[in-house]
Amino acid sequence: MSASLPRTRVGVWLIGARGSVATTAVAGCAAVAAGLHPPTGMVTETPPFADSGLPALTSLVFGGHDTMDCPLPKRAEELAAGGVLPHGLPAAVAAELAAADAEIRPGGPAPGDTRGTERLIAAFTADIQDFVRRGGLERAVVVNVASTEPAADGAALPPSSLYAAAALRAGCGYVNFTPSTGLHHPALAAAAAASGVPYAGRDGKTGQTLLRSVLGPMFAQRALDVRAWSGTNLLGGGDGAALADPAAAAAKNAGKERVLTDTLGGSPEGEVHIDDVPALGDWKTAWDHIAFDGFLGTRMVLQTTWQGCDSALAAPLVLDLARLTLRAQESGVRGPLTDLGFYFKDPVGQGPSALAEQYAALVRFGRQLGEAA
Amino acid sequence: MSASLPRTRVGVWLIGARGSVATTAVAGCAAVAAGLHPPTGMVTETPPFADSGLPALTSLVFGGHDTMDCPLPKRAEELAAGGVLPHGLPAAVAAELAAADAEIRPGGPAPGDTRGTERLIAAFTADIQDFVRRGGLERAVVVNVASTEPAADGAALPPSSLYAAAALRAGCGYVNFTPSTGLHHPALAAAAAASGVPYAGRDGKTGQTLLRSVLGPMFAQRALDVRAWSGTNLLGGGDGAALADPAAAAAKNAGKERVLTDTLGGSPEGEVHIDDVPALGDWKTAWDHIAFDGFLGTRMVLQTTWQGCDSALAAPLVLDLARLTLRAQESGVRGPLTDLGFYFKDPVGQGPSALAEQYAALVRFGRQLGEAA
Amino acid sequence: MSASLPRTRVGVWLIGARGSVATTAVAGCAAVAAGLHPPTGMVTETPPFADSGLPALTSLVFGGHDTMDCPLPKRAEELAAGGVLPHGLPAAVAAELAAADAEIRPGGPAPGDTRGTERLIAAFTADIQDFVRRGGLERAVVVNVASTEPAADGAALPPSSLYAAAALRAGCGYVNFTPSTGLHHPALAAAAAASGVPYAGRDGKTGQTLLRSVLGPMFAQRALDVRAWSGTNLLGGGDGAALADPAAAAAKNAGKERVLTDTLGGSPEGEVHIDDVPALGDWKTAWDHIAFDGFLGTRMVLQTTWQGCDSALAAPLVLDLARLTLRAQESGVRGPLTDLGFYFKDPVGQGPSALAEQYAALVRFGRQLGEAA
Amino acid sequence: MSASLPRTRVGVWLIGARGSVATTAVAGCAAVAAGLHPPTGMVTETPPFADSGLPALTSLVFGGHDTMDCPLPKRAEELAAGGVLPHGLPAAVAAELAAADAEIRPGGPAPGDTRGTERLIAAFTADIQDFVRRGGLERAVVVNVASTEPAADGAALPPSSLYAAAALRAGCGYVNFTPSTGLHHPALAAAAAASGVPYAGRDGKTGQTLLRSVLGPMFAQRALDVRAWSGTNLLGGGDGAALADPAAAAAKNAGKERVLTDTLGGSPEGEVHIDDVPALGDWKTAWDHIAFDGFLGTRMVLQTTWQGCDSALAAPLVLDLARLTLRAQESGVRGPLTDLGFYFKDPVGQGPSALAEQYAALVRFGRQLGEAA
Repeated sequence: MSASLPRTRVGVWLIGARGSVATTAVAGCAAVAAGLHPPTGMVTETPPFADSGLPALTSLVFGGHDTMDCPLPKRAEELAAGGVLPHGLPAAVAAELAAADAEIRPGGPAPGDTRGTERLIAAFTADIQDFVRRGGLERAVVVNVASTEPAADGAALPPSSLYAAAALRAGCGYVNFTPSTGLHHPALAAAAAASGVPYAGRDGKTGQTLLRSVLGPMFAQRALDVRAWSGTNLLGGGDGAALADPAAAAAKNAGKERVLTDTLGGSPEGEVHIDDVPALGDWKTAWDHIAFDGFLGTRMVLQTTWQGCDSALAAPLVLDLARLTLRAQESGVRGPLTDLGFYFKDPVGQGPSALAEQYAALVRFGRQLGEAA
Repeated sequence: MSASLPRTRVGVWLIGARGSVATTAVAGCAAVAAGLHPPTGMVTETPPFADSGLPALTSLVFGGHDTMDCPLPKRAEELAAGGVLPHGLPAAVAAELAAADAEIRPGGPAPGDTRGTERLIAAFTADIQDFVRRGGLERAVVVNVASTEPAADGAALPPSSLYAAAALRAGCGYVNFTPSTGLHHPALAAAAAASGVPYAGRDGKTGQTLLRSVLGPMFAQRALDVRAWSGTNLLGGGDGAALADPAAAAAKNAGKERVLTDTLGGSPEGEVHIDDVPALGDWKTAWDHIAFDGFLGTRMVLQTTWQGCDSALAAPLVLDLARLTLRAQESGVRGPLTDLGFYFKDPVGQGPSALAEQYAALVRFGRQLGEAA
Repeated sequence: MSASLPRTRVGVWLIGARGSVATTAVAGCAAVAAGLHPPTGMVTETPPFADSGLPALTSLVFGGHDTMDCPLPKRAEELAAGGVLPHGLPAAVAAELAAADAEIRPGGPAPGDTRGTERLIAAFTADIQDFVRRGGLERAVVVNVASTEPAADGAALPPSSLYAAAALRAGCGYVNFTPSTGLHHPALAAAAAASGVPYAGRDGKTGQTLLRSVLGPMFAQRALDVRAWSGTNLLGGGDGAALADPAAAAAKNAGKERVLTDTLGGSPEGEVHIDDVPALGDWKTAWDHIAFDGFLGTRMVLQTTWQGCDSALAAPLVLDLARLTLRAQESGVRGPLTDLGFYFKDPVGQGPSALAEQYAALVRFGRQLGEAA
Repeated sequence: MSASLPRTRVGVWLIGARGSVATTAVAGCAAVAAGLHPPTGMVTETPPFADSGLPALTSLVFGGHDTMDCPLPKRAEELAAGGVLPHGLPAAVAAELAAADAEIRPGGPAPGDTRGTERLIAAFTADIQDFVRRGGLERAVVVNVASTEPAADGAALPPSSLYAAAALRAGCGYVNFTPSTGLHHPALAAAAAASGVPYAGRDGKTGQTLLRSVLGPMFAQRALDVRAWSGTNLLGGGDGAALADPAAAAAKNAGKERVLTDTLGGSPEGEVHIDDVPALGDWKTAWDHIAFDGFLGTRMVLQTTWQGCDSALAAPLVLDLARLTLRAQESGVRGPLTDLGFYFKDPVGQGPSALAEQYAALVRFGRQLGEAA
């Protein structure tokens, strides 16, 4: 790779920096920047965003927090063995992986860690600020791609919120790609409002909910009466195990339900299951069964089966979100990025729920970014 | 039924008036008008069209052409036996079925019919004009819901075009709900342009293509690379038999392909099959298999299975189209109704192909109708 | 119906006699006996069983226990409205439905019922004996088709076991078509062994497990390595609600798992869900996802979707089982009917688990019945 | 790899020796023999065949005919890139691939080849005999795994029959794993009868038909009435292209139909499509839709989707068949191997069509082989 160094460099600080999504994002960014692969799945590389002033892929510098030790190059090899990354890619982007690996700091709190909330936030903030300063970065965005944490109970800040607080304190934009609490905590509301940084979330829409956000509107626009919408998700990898915990799944399912309620104007019958199936590795299968009534009450059924690779679906969206949020901050946009609802199951703000309208909002937002100074 | 007679009455002249779709439309219109069933599947009964000035369901008077003899009440009983109409409905709307049946005239040309094109058009025109005059109707719309005819070859007008020409000559709006030629014939282009009537078509979008018109845009908006889109349709009834004829299927498949080409910006690999499976009766099953590449070329798959009742899907759209076209003519709208692309596989004019944009255009059109005098 | 009265009459005493399965069995037996419908789904009406000496359908007399009041003719009309029974059938077999209805006695214990175990068993026994005596029946079989009860806890006999004990005491053969405890209770083991009646069960194999009993052996015979077998069942009706109770579902799922363990020689990953979806009524949909490894570890997937009507699947098997058990008792067969494993998820005894072997055993059993005096 | 050379060596002569199936068989045999992979998918490596006296995997020597030039090690790399072979495997078995490659001779007739039938057969026979002699092989079996050829028309021997004739002349057992004509040609009937070699075929049962051979019996045994059985196959690779030719597909579909006719006792409605979808590479997807009637005519549906890798499914069966046929010849078995129907869509002889019975016959055959001298 010999892409010339861009004039300015910006940072992408990943919470869960050694996870499958983060590893795929780092490796994929390098591969696309080097022309080894087309930018499939990256909306920000399509024509409507050509003039949005987004940071070039070559300008992105990666770092982050993680509680695990496995080096990124090794993680990339594991992903290639599982068919998530193309064979040969880890070797082709070994330098970039090593560079990102050198910028990963221990997350927390680890078991037995007796540091209180304030000390943890301060430590995380220092890590981020150090990353920006040493790298000579114009700015950075913090993106949470860690495994889903159990729903928070009580007033204590869960780990995802500690990182979110650190992002605010470091003056960074913040994106929550998971269903974890992050900035959605009462104790952070005032800080978020006062911070002046842009933020987006939560819970990336990569499969079943993506489909629901186009099928729900279809039924509504055709005046068809959805009676029951049932779904089962099978997935392995770390996410499967995390979501097999009912408390973690609850947060995720709330997002899935929201799109139906919003687009159908009511909640049909039906449940959503998330099963941990380790044999599937990073691949997930989502089956949806939709029973609906047509004219004169005639019963009909639509079924969908989505077989995708979670990391390959998420990583390009993570790159999109990082670029959009970095540019938004550069343009002086602050507060909740409602126009990024296209990417999320449970978006901040009061935007539309139908994918087509969300896409229109996103394109409009991209144009506004281009018109900013 | 004791709905008070509306002041004005308007006509719906159905080509294929004894078919399943026509029978379901006539019976269903009466049932909904009488409050026996909610208007599920009728877009024109949803709030955005409340002020569009559409003719009331109680004002619709039905008649039409058909080459078959079976009386509508008997056809309705057959449909009820097949689960297409609710049991008891044929009896509940027997009067309306009988009234429509009395307004059905023989279609043609029958085998051995030696009347030429001109005489057939004249006869059909007279039938329609007679229907309007005797009924004291303000106006009428001609809607083609006959079985798909083989693709026209040569210059001769196929039957669907004879009826379309009669509609023009009788000064009626025209809707082609089938893939047959209808007004899409070079010999009718000048007459259509000069007629001053509104027209729409063709090929109602009721199942697989409806799905494609939301899934295609989803893939495009997410920058995913669709490699192959394959489909199989199983259906019985008259339509299954008609479409088992490769020549008839060709017209239908062209419409199905168009939505992919338009929304994906290219034609993926894959074929579409239409199988005649008489055991399925009026029910159809459509299976789609979509192989797409995500980030870094990772291969993923979406499959959909749509199990629907063809007549129950089509009939409310036929009523929608009749009302919209009647109101358009009343409002002085003429020529191709590009804003009705929402309803068709292969719409007239140069409107959008994505369902969401088509819906927005339809709602806008409904508002314009309301603003007309 | 004017089938001549057979010389001997035998009784079928249904626990849950007003339920969907029982109603379908009673109505269907009359319809098939009268020649209104072919005996589709009844294995005992196929050629291998022609000489087994089974009681004629016209010789079957129905009665039973239920805690509900709704008369059978009304239940049949409800089922016809839901598409479970053909329209017109309830009227055509009204006499038979009324006759069975007159033989239904209140089940129990009802809430507030203070009768103890012994008094309940005695009352149920008396009901059955009275049915046999008044009807002049040669013998009777008791078949449990009631809603699944929660898994028993502690030593107390659950209701299904009270009825089973009554069957023993009345000298009747016993069939448990449900996953409820029935005769599978330690307190009944001695009585069952001493009773000298034949018995079979449990949990009728009507859909997902039926499929598993042919697919499991296929994978095993081809030496393919099943890694994960996941399933979701959607069903409405009473059964859906009963099985939404995790305790009731546990019993059912144990049976589903058993067929995999037995045929695959091990337990693959994967869960089974049973969702209550009232909108589906008596219809159920079962989706199975099977991830397996082939040669050199290549990952492959089979998915199945089974859409069936629970009562229509169960009722002919109930008639089969009643006839086979009645004939077995007549032939002097006693104890567990291991050869009826073809019909059950969790069969009594140590028979094969693969459907093909179970079928061979059933045919052999039918031949033995024919050779008996 | 350093497996000790077995005392005796036997030959496997592959028609289509550079194709995906052949390459996978050669590479896989080496990998399993070396203990790099378990023998998943090889029925002959399961306990029932432990004492059948089959040739050890280490004793198999590969050669064959092909009209293409690409060396086997290169073909193996291509398959690894497509996910058919595990990455790293081609390198691990490079020696075995090179050894087999050295034993591949040009097939024919090539375009412009003016040699007549007799000269071609003689040339092929000489190739095989030379292979046996130079290798010091005890015997060899000829296995056709070439792309399906168009259905033969007229009396001329198609290429597959030329190779079959050469096998007979060389005194080798013969297995036709494809739907091509092979030994099924009138002109070869006398030679086959007189040859004294065992032979088996045709058309390996690897996916949709495998499923049908267990599902068909299930419906029959349950007395369910299959009304329509429809199927669509999507596959890329050479086979997809070959079968997109209707003439080639006709032979394959005849085999698929046969299993239904034989197991259901009649031919239900429904068609089978084979689509060439190059984007799928060596992966194939088969969708089946089965509409059946249950008790009282209630309509139900089963759908299956099979996603498999053609070569990975076929290769272990090819190894099984080679070993079984070699051992059969050694044991003095001659003529059609009816007991190998387990492996074929359209088996030679009059064996059973249900997989369970075919498996029982195979196990019995394996035992007989063990009892032979």
